[in-house]
Amino acid sequence: MNIGIVGGGQLGRMLALAGIPLNMRFSFLDPAIDACAAALGEHICAAYDDQKALRQLGESVDLVTFEFENVPAETVDFLAQFVPVFPSGAALRVARDRLLEKSLFQELGIPTPTFANALSQQELDAAVQRIGLPAVLKTRTLGYDGKGQKVLRNPAEVVCAFADLGQVPCILEGFVPFNGEVSLIAVRGRDGETRSYPLIHNQHEGGILRQSLVSSAHPLQALAEDYARRVLDKLDYVGVLAFEFFEVDGGLKANEIAPRVHNSGHLSIEGSECSQFENHLRAIAGLPLGSVAKTGESAMLNCIGSVPSTAQVAGIAGAHLHHYGKAFKPGRKVGHITLCASDKDRLEARLAAALSLVEPSA
Amino acid sequence: MNIGIVGGGQLGRMLALAGIPLNMRFSFLDPAIDACAAALGEHICAAYDDQKALRQLGESVDLVTFEFENVPAETVDFLAQFVPVFPSGAALRVARDRLLEKSLFQELGIPTPTFANALSQQELDAAVQRIGLPAVLKTRTLGYDGKGQKVLRNPAEVVCAFADLGQVPCILEGFVPFNGEVSLIAVRGRDGETRSYPLIHNQHEGGILRQSLVSSAHPLQALAEDYARRVLDKLDYVGVLAFEFFEVDGGLKANEIAPRVHNSGHLSIEGSECSQFENHLRAIAGLPLGSVAKTGESAMLNCIGSVPSTAQVAGIAGAHLHHYGKAFKPGRKVGHITLCASDKDRLEARLAAALSLVEPSA
Repeated sequence: MNIGIVGGGQLGRMLALAGIPLNMRFSFLDPAIDACAAALGEHICAAYDDQKALRQLGESVDLVTFEFENVPAETVDFLAQFVPVFPSGAALRVARDRLLEKSLFQELGIPTPTFANALSQQELDAAVQRIGLPAVLKTRTLGYDGKGQKVLRNPAEVVCAFADLGQVPCILEGFVPFNGEVSLIAVRGRDGETRSYPLIHNQHEGGILRQSLVSSAHPLQALAEDYARRVLDKLDYVGVLAFEFFEVDGGLKANEIAPRVHNSGHLSIEGSECSQFENHLRAIAGLPLGSVAKTGESAMLNCIGSVPSTAQVAGIAGAHLHHYGKAFKPGRKVGHITLCASDKDRLEARLAAALSLVEPSA
Repeated sequence: MNIGIVGGGQLGRMLALAGIPLNMRFSFLDPAIDACAAALGEHICAAYDDQKALRQLGESVDLVTFEFENVPAETVDFLAQFVPVFPSGAALRVARDRLLEKSLFQELGIPTPTFANALSQQELDAAVQRIGLPAVLKTRTLGYDGKGQKVLRNPAEVVCAFADLGQVPCILEGFVPFNGEVSLIAVRGRDGETRSYPLIHNQHEGGILRQSLVSSAHPLQALAEDYARRVLDKLDYVGVLAFEFFEVDGGLKANEIAPRVHNSGHLSIEGSECSQFENHLRAIAGLPLGSVAKTGESAMLNCIGSVPSTAQVAGIAGAHLHHYGKAFKPGRKVGHITLCASDKDRLEARLAAALSLVEPSA
């Protein structure tokens, strides 16, 4: 089976590593000459709105998926003329727009932070009146890793906020004093079957995911799965969907969804019976879904800016290095380390050892 | 790190799948246009004695290894002028010649079947007198998957046996009425550290490995490890070495060694903390070795001639398909399925389900 992937970064790379043993072949559409997935398939090096390239991709593969949702809606519609696209353009349209996303949560009875549309400074001012401060102003589309957002703590910060984010459509969200952040990686097959991995505890630093830890029998697991299923069924979704929640007072508030495999699910490669990458491929290819059960305790640590030496990582028991083969740049995700162990104490020790490698004392 | 691999079949393919996340890049020397590892690196399509190609390989990588030991000794010596080669030419020379191999076992006090050199029909006749029948005549080099050998049960079968195997140097081995066949996958680092995976029970059919099952606390584990260590240290071996034994009367008789990752070790991808593929790469790259501990119960089933549909395999819980992307041909290894489970009963049921796919009732 030939699979086209829009985007050729590390998510595409790990999808291909999971799919090659299933006899899948991959073509990546990515404008970057050095797209790191290119080593694992064909690379169509072109812009996401290049119709000639899109047609080339669409006509050469059996289906198309995404490792990157920030593509123009027209791209998806254009591709869909030639080839099945999973998840659908309708699902992507919702997931890439914070207003449509939060409105969907609301419609489905899933708690969210309070929010309001802000298409101008005037609307923002009105929204601040209603929601209060502190609040977070976010661009409706194209945000990632903390980019495209601004925390508003006091009235002075509100004044130029709309201009600061580039005068693009925004959403204002009430600030949620959360106890923790968790994500649920769920997958839905073409036949509607849905499976959810154990909830994952996440820690962000500067807006970028720093580390993830798989949970054991989290009391909110069933609730999170219920929320995810509402969204998946409503969107007739096919593939992996990542659902980020704030833990608030023993409940969950939906933060956002990502219509793709997700950084917080990377630990599923070693930590689950079937990884999020293989399950996404199984789903879009119409295959039976794989087990989402965990195989032991696991945690993931992102390598941001640089990757420690392979020898150092290999020296930690239960550590698995995933080097993305990308050029090192400050703030760029260039690899991750998964730590596995049979019990929590061992995992903690291994995670601490790995942390000492990615955060060398200055 | 750039790694050259002599041979571009499924072993090279799985080495690359293990090495890419460690930021390794691969070049494969293989005369087959459709070498199935080629999708994962550079493919130098040339004969194993093509000096121009060998120089190209040697000059473009940091070190060279093998997925295939039946290459001329001159190939290894030639490559070694340009680049470190692991395992060494000396180790390969012993492992590819059944007489040198068995002589080494004898020298190191490792029990083997009785054997004798047979360089002519006359020597074969004399060897049969000494060893008796039944016995197995094998070509000293280039044998694999039951090819290059002939069981001699009665004097009539001895008459033309030497000519039947092509009048090449042979070895006659006394037939061993064994209770079972086991293999030990061992790995030795550049620093001499050695680790051994749990013994694996193997079943062959028509000379080809059909299925493997990882053992639990096998009573002969320590003995097998002791034998393997003698060979590894004697050869100053670097990399994975597979050691095949016959189980005979509560002891072991050494059958043969393979100086590379081995079919019976494929279950280590999912069944061990660090696979034989990653550990081979760690060893030759001078990295700390990974854990050889098993993560649960596992078994492997070879797909010979054809691979069942991905949907059928994906429908079995705990099944992991490894399709090699090779053309289907009778008798050819074209894939394998690993079954994983938390206990033996579940594993048996999953293995039975997989067996029903690869052996459809005719």
